[in-house]
Amino acid sequence: MSRKLRMGMVGGGRGAFIGGVHRFAAGIDGQIDLVCGALHVDPEIAKLSGEDLYLSPERNYKTYYEMFEKESQLPADERMDFVSIVTPNFVHFEPAKLALENGFHVVCEKPLSFSLEEALILQKLVEETGLTFTVTHTYTGYPLVKQAREMCTSGVFGKIRKVVVEYPQGWLTTPVEQSGNQQASWRTDPKRSGKAGSVGDIGTHAENLAETITGLKITELSADVSKFVENRLLDDDANVLLRFDNGAKGVLHCSQIAAGEENALNIRVYGEKGSLQWHQHDPNTMYVKWLDKPMEVYRTGGGYLGASAAAHTRTPAGHPEGYLEAFANIYRDFTKVVQAKLDGVEVDPIYNDFPTVEEGVRGMKFIDAVIESGENNAAWTKI
Amino acid sequence: MSRKLRMGMVGGGRGAFIGGVHRFAAGIDGQIDLVCGALHVDPEIAKLSGEDLYLSPERNYKTYYEMFEKESQLPADERMDFVSIVTPNFVHFEPAKLALENGFHVVCEKPLSFSLEEALILQKLVEETGLTFTVTHTYTGYPLVKQAREMCTSGVFGKIRKVVVEYPQGWLTTPVEQSGNQQASWRTDPKRSGKAGSVGDIGTHAENLAETITGLKITELSADVSKFVENRLLDDDANVLLRFDNGAKGVLHCSQIAAGEENALNIRVYGEKGSLQWHQHDPNTMYVKWLDKPMEVYRTGGGYLGASAAAHTRTPAGHPEGYLEAFANIYRDFTKVVQAKLDGVEVDPIYNDFPTVEEGVRGMKFIDAVIESGENNAAWTKI
Amino acid sequence: MSRKLRMGMVGGGRGAFIGGVHRFAAGIDGQIDLVCGALHVDPEIAKLSGEDLYLSPERNYKTYYEMFEKESQLPADERMDFVSIVTPNFVHFEPAKLALENGFHVVCEKPLSFSLEEALILQKLVEETGLTFTVTHTYTGYPLVKQAREMCTSGVFGKIRKVVVEYPQGWLTTPVEQSGNQQASWRTDPKRSGKAGSVGDIGTHAENLAETITGLKITELSADVSKFVENRLLDDDANVLLRFDNGAKGVLHCSQIAAGEENALNIRVYGEKGSLQWHQHDPNTMYVKWLDKPMEVYRTGGGYLGASAAAHTRTPAGHPEGYLEAFANIYRDFTKVVQAKLDGVEVDPIYNDFPTVEEGVRGMKFIDAVIESGENNAAWTKI
Amino acid sequence: MSRKLRMGMVGGGRGAFIGGVHRFAAGIDGQIDLVCGALHVDPEIAKLSGEDLYLSPERNYKTYYEMFEKESQLPADERMDFVSIVTPNFVHFEPAKLALENGFHVVCEKPLSFSLEEALILQKLVEETGLTFTVTHTYTGYPLVKQAREMCTSGVFGKIRKVVVEYPQGWLTTPVEQSGNQQASWRTDPKRSGKAGSVGDIGTHAENLAETITGLKITELSADVSKFVENRLLDDDANVLLRFDNGAKGVLHCSQIAAGEENALNIRVYGEKGSLQWHQHDPNTMYVKWLDKPMEVYRTGGGYLGASAAAHTRTPAGHPEGYLEAFANIYRDFTKVVQAKLDGVEVDPIYNDFPTVEEGVRGMKFIDAVIESGENNAAWTKI
Repeated sequence: MSRKLRMGMVGGGRGAFIGGVHRFAAGIDGQIDLVCGALHVDPEIAKLSGEDLYLSPERNYKTYYEMFEKESQLPADERMDFVSIVTPNFVHFEPAKLALENGFHVVCEKPLSFSLEEALILQKLVEETGLTFTVTHTYTGYPLVKQAREMCTSGVFGKIRKVVVEYPQGWLTTPVEQSGNQQASWRTDPKRSGKAGSVGDIGTHAENLAETITGLKITELSADVSKFVENRLLDDDANVLLRFDNGAKGVLHCSQIAAGEENALNIRVYGEKGSLQWHQHDPNTMYVKWLDKPMEVYRTGGGYLGASAAAHTRTPAGHPEGYLEAFANIYRDFTKVVQAKLDGVEVDPIYNDFPTVEEGVRGMKFIDAVIESGENNAAWTKI
Repeated sequence: MSRKLRMGMVGGGRGAFIGGVHRFAAGIDGQIDLVCGALHVDPEIAKLSGEDLYLSPERNYKTYYEMFEKESQLPADERMDFVSIVTPNFVHFEPAKLALENGFHVVCEKPLSFSLEEALILQKLVEETGLTFTVTHTYTGYPLVKQAREMCTSGVFGKIRKVVVEYPQGWLTTPVEQSGNQQASWRTDPKRSGKAGSVGDIGTHAENLAETITGLKITELSADVSKFVENRLLDDDANVLLRFDNGAKGVLHCSQIAAGEENALNIRVYGEKGSLQWHQHDPNTMYVKWLDKPMEVYRTGGGYLGASAAAHTRTPAGHPEGYLEAFANIYRDFTKVVQAKLDGVEVDPIYNDFPTVEEGVRGMKFIDAVIESGENNAAWTKI
Repeated sequence: MSRKLRMGMVGGGRGAFIGGVHRFAAGIDGQIDLVCGALHVDPEIAKLSGEDLYLSPERNYKTYYEMFEKESQLPADERMDFVSIVTPNFVHFEPAKLALENGFHVVCEKPLSFSLEEALILQKLVEETGLTFTVTHTYTGYPLVKQAREMCTSGVFGKIRKVVVEYPQGWLTTPVEQSGNQQASWRTDPKRSGKAGSVGDIGTHAENLAETITGLKITELSADVSKFVENRLLDDDANVLLRFDNGAKGVLHCSQIAAGEENALNIRVYGEKGSLQWHQHDPNTMYVKWLDKPMEVYRTGGGYLGASAAAHTRTPAGHPEGYLEAFANIYRDFTKVVQAKLDGVEVDPIYNDFPTVEEGVRGMKFIDAVIESGENNAAWTKI
Repeated sequence: MSRKLRMGMVGGGRGAFIGGVHRFAAGIDGQIDLVCGALHVDPEIAKLSGEDLYLSPERNYKTYYEMFEKESQLPADERMDFVSIVTPNFVHFEPAKLALENGFHVVCEKPLSFSLEEALILQKLVEETGLTFTVTHTYTGYPLVKQAREMCTSGVFGKIRKVVVEYPQGWLTTPVEQSGNQQASWRTDPKRSGKAGSVGDIGTHAENLAETITGLKITELSADVSKFVENRLLDDDANVLLRFDNGAKGVLHCSQIAAGEENALNIRVYGEKGSLQWHQHDPNTMYVKWLDKPMEVYRTGGGYLGASAAAHTRTPAGHPEGYLEAFANIYRDFTKVVQAKLDGVEVDPIYNDFPTVEEGVRGMKFIDAVIESGENNAAWTKI
């Protein structure tokens, strides 16, 4: 019989952003207890952070090394089942590797790792261990993204011809990393973020969304990559031409200097018979257009939606579901898969639906291709 | 030092809707553990429902009588701190009364009770016991509703002159209660819902929203109340003229036969200098209009928002927050007030912000006035 | 064979607003020549105004008395065919009466007249003379309003149950009539506007829209009528409950103190099977909602629209048509009817579609009922 | 003293689309009379078309050769003042050249000509003759496009960094040109349209809009140009990376196979301090975003708009102005410039504001660069 899962967390202490988001998301469905953590690189902050979260002192670890070691030694009915890794990019690989090597399932922030090499090692480890691993490309957790994927891949729009995906943000319009903004600081630091700035932070979300919804793969791209803010160390803008494996063409642009924009992730997919548009700011609405009849507006909770959208919605139509519910869908599905493993049963396939390590690897390849193309004056580059 | 609170639940077993919503909302912030429940009037369903939620068998109660009795006998560091009452209207009063009489804080679904008489008794009990009591008028939990309230009551719009508030739904357009829809069945049954249908179920939300945002009180109203669906036993539509205590006029209309509408709660407030509009379907956006400059669009998470909106937001701008987060704000604030009581400290007033028993009583008076006016051909009726 | 029509104009000289609108609208389709006018009560301004419009000096009349007299004496192939009356309300009746008595067709601004008595006289004259007469309730000229009417009256939504129509404006939020605003001045002056302010100026548009689209008649109403601005002489706000001849209920509210609003005329019609919404600010979009499938968005120019919408659209979908085109539809249809009379043929019924003198009378009855109800504390009043 | 102008028309007979649009636009302001035409290549259709428009038989010409010859011989107070050329692309050059050589001002459809060579000849002729010449890039006629231009070029957004301009249409999603659609037929025919399909037909609009609003020039571009529909002879889709002369980057994409789209021309301009967005489907609304305050929504007719927007608006805020009014703004300004020349006075510079022959040449250079880049696998190509 299923039981609640026990979660550990690496990162996410005081001052962090995404760690709290993971905890909100893990909390919604009442299937997960946070039991331990290595919440901060500074032991004192780690301690206080754990107290904030009511961790018992003995499981409020100083380091993730300690956490993996101690948790591994706990009895099976006590030790954590999985770890959430919510640290900056350069601290994804090691804890993820340790987790897998010690038999813990993993929820890992995106991008998967600091480099493609690391990503490939993790992918291999997941294959070898058979453990469950997800990369939190949150946006594919929205019910209407599931619906979009179902409609595109089932062929109702005919062959897909064109994809326009964009993710404009404005929060790095000025050099905020030079005046102490913690979130900006590591994201614009090549030592902590990797070779990409905006391309890694949000471009990968756009890439993941486009490939997830269409079921297509980007085969090559041509990227004009920019650093607009003086003395910034990583890209803050990219405009990218895309070509897909079925012959479709596309445009992807992402920016962190799009003044005044929030998280304006938007996708349009055009097929031979119709098209769709979905925008993250109004995630419960999807526009479906046809050649010869009125545009239809699909809404989260609508009785006409497919099985996957319905399975990832908590409330009836008219109760806006947001970012945290999309995030919680990843945790909920991850939980169901792990619970099924614990119970020795097959999980209902409809819930086996979260971004995998393969998608994480794909994101790293995308980063490499965009940065390489950018360095070559937007030369076409294979992905 | 604060600790997680222990929650019991009355109602919310298998087949219920709003009970699950309460649990999602209570789970988000990681400050509440569900420890016991009397989840269903049918003991077998109650048992299974408790198992779904991992309740320990001995605290998975058959009745709420049993729950209050047994929990009262548990040691202070074990028994529940508060109860959430998520039953149909006719089962609000008794468990709420028992909870207060036994020293438990209360979260109660709206409308507060079956009749105004019951509501007044509860109000008196709350005053006498000093316990914390909230009625889940969810919509006032949205950050931008806090902002709207701050702007209206601080006078930036000058004197308020006109309020238009509406709540159209379409789910009762056909007689679904006659074909086994559980949610429709009790809501249209005078024995379980009370004297009002749509007016109690959603009209009270509209009333509460209007009074909360403006800080004004409706003094009298003229209501044209209808039953459009044949053989329906309670109203499914009402159009109401409003007069407020400062001389403002208004319109309130609610409907459950507004074919195709979801939960289209919408409010517009017009003052001498400007106005605002907020719509529940797009809750992270508020339109602020002025006499002589461009309309402004306020967004959840915007740095320009006031303290209360900021204190009730979990993520930065661009991460849509939805209905569950608004609901969770009630639970979060309720938790902080109760935790402060446990700790013997003053709560930060910014968190002492949830719908009180007085608002619940106000809702019952509104129901009485609307129904009475409706029975008198929309005669003006004092509230 | 058809020819261009010759138009005269009463009012619309320098400083006027709606006269220019009439001329824009009359010009679009190339079927009308402005040949004469009595453009202003001040002869000097009249003269200059006519020069602006290239009127020949001998047909640039000092008064409309002179205009009707002189034009009547011109040969049939020279004299004006019809007159457009674009003066303030208190100068509608006399020129309209003179026009009809002298055999000229009439385009008349709304509301039809200063009083119901005048309106009834005009109605009788139209019947007796067989002349063509239209009242410029512009909003019913929009293609999607035609579509809305077709859908409602053909029964696709089943029996209509509820109508919500609103017309909020903000331009009279402050006492602008007290500081020389010419448009505000006469509209708030009972000697020039009649017994109603906002109710006559925009409330009648809302009434006309609701009755036109639904094909229903308001039978009685209950109106809370207000003057919010100090020392204003006529109403600037009204909230009205409606009852229709088929049993439908409704709400109409209009305001000129709705701070920040432009011409936010909006209508929602709810039937047993579906509903529609149309908003004047985005006139090329209509929302159609159903019980069990996605909302549809109808767009001007869509190939799926009915014959009447198609016949009143000038460009393919994607070319926004606006207020002037809606206005021009009245002129275009009026022209076709008059041309057919000149040619002695039947006009295609699809073009015999503009607001008639009967609708003008209806508007005057609506004004009387609202004002009477308002004076009686919103007592139900027959229309 | 000014007088109405006399217009001739080349093309625009029965079955045409854009000719009617020109006549609507020319008619609105009452400053232009259509006096002659060579309306169709087929003399019989030309004759009937002229009768439709009440042309006198002797000025209802069989060919434009005849028209220019005969009109030139008419007395100055009778002959046409200017000609509107509304034929397919391959018939722009010759009549435009003849017009200029014969002393007639010219309104010419876009793209300016069939080839860049032709365009340069016309440019030279305009310089030599001093005649007034406009190319109908309609979209820059919208009031809020004037406002956008004023805001961008005056520096309120700081240095412009990024431009995203797009023009998706869906009407060529299927091979409609192969089944007799007249509009599709010539647009997809290299003999009549030139070397470009979608790029010439709508890509040039996007280019013109971007350069007009920002005041910047595209210096080089990288274009992925596609023919998605089988057997289509010209491009129906293009995705283009842009670089501007101030260092800004951009994306332009246009498509005629974007299934379900109308004329979804949309532009976003991002500067160091703020940004704007304007969409052609809702042309009376412009979104202005800032780093640290709420988004502002500018509306046509708003009192806060600049002089140019105000000068190109016919009605107060709340009366939607559309495509025809934007088009009419070109005609109105063109008329004022020509009238001023006739009167020997200086025109008010605010009205000397319509797309010039230089912009037409620019469009032809853009077409050449995009097509060349497309043929070179999206190599960077100077413009």
